[in-house]
Amino acid sequence: MLAPSLPEEDDDAARLVTMRGGLGCVPGVRLAGVHAGIKARKRDLALIAFDESQVCASAVTTNEVKAAPVLVSAEHLAASGNAIRALVCNSGCANACTGDRGERDARATARQAATLLGVEASQVIVASTGVIGVPLPMDRMQRGLERCAAQLETGGKSSFDAAEAIMTTDRVPKLSAYAFYDGDKKYVVGGIAKGSGMIAPNMATMLSFVATDLPMTRETLQQALLASVDESFNMISVDGDMSTNDAIYAFAPQGSDAPPPTFQRALRRVCLDLAQAMVADGEGATKKLTLHVTQASDTAQARAIGRAVINSNLVKTALYGEDPNWGRIIAAAGSARAGLNPATWSLLVNGKTWVEVGAIEALSEAEAHKELEQTEIVIELRLGTGDATATAWGCDLSRDYVRINASYRT
Amino acid sequence: MLAPSLPEEDDDAARLVTMRGGLGCVPGVRLAGVHAGIKARKRDLALIAFDESQVCASAVTTNEVKAAPVLVSAEHLAASGNAIRALVCNSGCANACTGDRGERDARATARQAATLLGVEASQVIVASTGVIGVPLPMDRMQRGLERCAAQLETGGKSSFDAAEAIMTTDRVPKLSAYAFYDGDKKYVVGGIAKGSGMIAPNMATMLSFVATDLPMTRETLQQALLASVDESFNMISVDGDMSTNDAIYAFAPQGSDAPPPTFQRALRRVCLDLAQAMVADGEGATKKLTLHVTQASDTAQARAIGRAVINSNLVKTALYGEDPNWGRIIAAAGSARAGLNPATWSLLVNGKTWVEVGAIEALSEAEAHKELEQTEIVIELRLGTGDATATAWGCDLSRDYVRINASYRT
Repeated sequence: MLAPSLPEEDDDAARLVTMRGGLGCVPGVRLAGVHAGIKARKRDLALIAFDESQVCASAVTTNEVKAAPVLVSAEHLAASGNAIRALVCNSGCANACTGDRGERDARATARQAATLLGVEASQVIVASTGVIGVPLPMDRMQRGLERCAAQLETGGKSSFDAAEAIMTTDRVPKLSAYAFYDGDKKYVVGGIAKGSGMIAPNMATMLSFVATDLPMTRETLQQALLASVDESFNMISVDGDMSTNDAIYAFAPQGSDAPPPTFQRALRRVCLDLAQAMVADGEGATKKLTLHVTQASDTAQARAIGRAVINSNLVKTALYGEDPNWGRIIAAAGSARAGLNPATWSLLVNGKTWVEVGAIEALSEAEAHKELEQTEIVIELRLGTGDATATAWGCDLSRDYVRINASYRT
Repeated sequence: MLAPSLPEEDDDAARLVTMRGGLGCVPGVRLAGVHAGIKARKRDLALIAFDESQVCASAVTTNEVKAAPVLVSAEHLAASGNAIRALVCNSGCANACTGDRGERDARATARQAATLLGVEASQVIVASTGVIGVPLPMDRMQRGLERCAAQLETGGKSSFDAAEAIMTTDRVPKLSAYAFYDGDKKYVVGGIAKGSGMIAPNMATMLSFVATDLPMTRETLQQALLASVDESFNMISVDGDMSTNDAIYAFAPQGSDAPPPTFQRALRRVCLDLAQAMVADGEGATKKLTLHVTQASDTAQARAIGRAVINSNLVKTALYGEDPNWGRIIAAAGSARAGLNPATWSLLVNGKTWVEVGAIEALSEAEAHKELEQTEIVIELRLGTGDATATAWGCDLSRDYVRINASYRT
């Protein structure tokens, strides 16, 4: 369906082998997810334990109001000398805007997990998601952690439990894992995530935890993570508009060798899978939009325009209504103020030319409407000024989005 | 209801006298609004004529995709030496993304109006609003303009007709006018506008035409207009996110004297009235939010934070659901990255302390919910770091917003 000007898949992508089970597929990682009673009925507490100390890379919210777990985890990363042994994440309570008590509770959570696992408190990362302004129920957290510690296991089942335990308005748990090879030696990179579409500009919290068994330095891991995040999570989100709790943590055993190029590709695929799963699970979403911005002057321009279009409420509602109102796409692209040339753009939908250069409609309104009736829609916006590309993913804005968010509790 | 830290009304605001009838109250301005057949049934073409040449100040969209009338009007402003005699505005068709034909049509519209009025084509400003990508029906425009020219009148009735003719999804025409005094001499400033809430980041077109009979230089008028726009239209909108057609034009007879301070106050009040009318008429809106950001370090900070909060879909949906989820307000404020101190803010709703410094809830959830049941809600966000203030206006995001925008035609 895609036009030839789109970026090609990696030549040796075939050397990546999809695995079911996400984070639990990574050797040396054990997980558990339980119902601790923070939420009324569903799983709400996850524990991830690493058999050996891990270097940890991260990308966290740029919001000036940061939740207590984000602040405490940053302290722990510094204090532990990057030798992380575990991560605790609860849903149902964001532990944000909870004052001094919030930080005390986040520290106590790490201490409780550390005691149960026989590690230092500073070796534990904490994360939370849910309602802002409500303190963590610490007694339930303690009892839940005890049950988590007793249930820690490798493999897909425990990974699903943990992925479920970090969900808020998500409808499905989000997991991804790939095996990759360094010569003949096989490694794995896998992750879990939560986040339910409409991520930005709406600040629904996004969390993702990714690990590999390939040893490397923290700097290498950080660099690889940021490159992957720019192409994945940041293309469903706008940097300046994150929630108080957004965080991605990546883990790897300490090592000194440079990782093979396949590692970066595998990490990128995991991040893309998880980011796209968030979009597909958009709150109230009925359609998924893949937007290729091509023939751009540079990548930054392509990304800025891509993000502006997928974040436009008018584009999102038109998509929901299957309304072939291409003017909204161009207006949103122009609003990015990233150097769009109004005279050279053209538009394709599902591989068909929709609007030619000069704003000449190539599809009738009925034909374009038919394309928008699909549930997975691919739009290509050709800027006509270069050869850089970027892809952004979005979903529609439905009445159900309003219903879900008009009275959100946990 | 407002807390004492809020800005006081102007001391001599009493010297401004409200007038019914908007732009039509300004001596020397004649208007008409007719059904030209661009839309199926409703009025869709307005003509404004000035008895003498006017200097014209303006603020237009910063979108890189500018509609043909915006571009042609800029040419005319330069070519006429700022001696404007008329303005034509149609609804039902934005004349945006219409290529060379769009500019030809915009020029022809100006020419037709000029011929009917006996002035130069370059003395005519043109504006359009409606669907993007559709050409203007020039035969209907011509016949409509002829009827407009025959019906031009001063006063409130013609002002209402013109205000109605520029509406798209607006439910009510928007007019405002004030008389003000320079010593004993009475002048008027009045305007009409269209725009239906959810203005930004959603790029619903906003148009406003304002005039006064007090003579002044173009530079003085421009300065006064921008100061008023910053406090009014820009506080319901974010600069970077305007539609292809957004424009405000202000007119005054050529003069050289410095206008009295009451002129700036009257112009500000007209702009505030029109901007707030847009918010109150928000697409699908059921509630109006007035957000005072106080105790800010400076005005720029207060404005940036105010805009971030009123533009947050999560704040808007919570408002619709009367959900006292104050965390969303603080998360939106922090996302502005304007220097919010997470330790010093507090929140009031309808004049009552809602959340005290340290994120301590002063109202129960039931009490806060009761406040949000009002249809006009006043929230004050005290930043606790200075004494600057700003006010922003917003509305809720309802299921009806989605319904209206999922299939928008004219």
